[in-house]
Amino acid sequence: MERSPRERMVYSAAQLVRARGLAGTGVREIVEHANAPRGSFQHYFPGGKDQLVGEALLWAGDFAAKWAARYPETTSDPTPSGLFAHMVEPWKEEFAKRGYERGCPVMASVADLGGTDTPLTGQIRAALNRWEQAVAEELVRMGIPVPRAHHLAILMISTLEGAIMFARLHHDVTPLNTAVATLSPALTS
Amino acid sequence: MERSPRERMVYSAAQLVRARGLAGTGVREIVEHANAPRGSFQHYFPGGKDQLVGEALLWAGDFAAKWAARYPETTSDPTPSGLFAHMVEPWKEEFAKRGYERGCPVMASVADLGGTDTPLTGQIRAALNRWEQAVAEELVRMGIPVPRAHHLAILMISTLEGAIMFARLHHDVTPLNTAVATLSPALTS
Repeated sequence: MERSPRERMVYSAAQLVRARGLAGTGVREIVEHANAPRGSFQHYFPGGKDQLVGEALLWAGDFAAKWAARYPETTSDPTPSGLFAHMVEPWKEEFAKRGYERGCPVMASVADLGGTDTPLTGQIRAALNRWEQAVAEELVRMGIPVPRAHHLAILMISTLEGAIMFARLHHDVTPLNTAVATLSPALTS
Repeated sequence: MERSPRERMVYSAAQLVRARGLAGTGVREIVEHANAPRGSFQHYFPGGKDQLVGEALLWAGDFAAKWAARYPETTSDPTPSGLFAHMVEPWKEEFAKRGYERGCPVMASVADLGGTDTPLTGQIRAALNRWEQAVAEELVRMGIPVPRAHHLAILMISTLEGAIMFARLHHDVTPLNTAVATLSPALTS
């Protein structure tokens, strides 16, 4: 199914923010990357760059949430450690297949955020919440009480974010494997 | 002791990158923030913004390394969990005292990095290596074998980086406390 110009712009915004950060990504580059008609940006996104990037972040949060929710399909013996390895897996694949250009768009946006809320802050929070919620739900499904499930979800996402940083900086997936191996004892229920 | 204009520019570069990221920080803002004479930038930093920001990142890496190395002064019973809590402590203090404007400059730089090495990549790597090395040295001092000490250092720094992201986004230090509490079982030697 072909994506519409609007969908392509949302996708391109997410990919460019992942590579260059929020401040480093301009509307013109997004439109070019999406191969969208020049005039279409204002038509689809009357709220400007904030609207487009906000949608891109929510799209990325949904993507991560859906991936976490697919974990039960992959195993007959779900464990928190196994879920964490599942969360790390697409990052290893991304880096191996496409190189280290693209990190996490949520991290990239928070890094540029400063201390005051912007029109984007709510969308970044919503994107991260969707991801955290999806991870916590999988943990609850394994019998972990809700509060601890959220604590472990925060731990798992935090560790993954930092390990992505190490991997991108060193152009090496080893830190992701290190994270999976060393975090495991913290993830027993 | 008063800092020289050159030192102030390095310090200001680190603080602005922490708040706004690499792409969001301009030389003119750094010079203004440092209250330095306008013409002095090119004199002190003939290599331009890359030289200045590179020095700022190394300064930040040294700062984090020195902080880790001070852990033994704070306790008569050093443990890996205690070291991690010690690493988290200044972040809680920073956020409580100064708000959530400033994150980690290494993370902010990596977020904007893209996939190809820039003149700054080496300095970012060196800054992170100094930090990792200092944390690993403290763990080795506790009797942990060198390879495991490096794995745990990567785990601790990764988790801290992600928890900083949660804390800044939510304007709340709770994720930092969650990281300390939940990571602990992974840090037993």
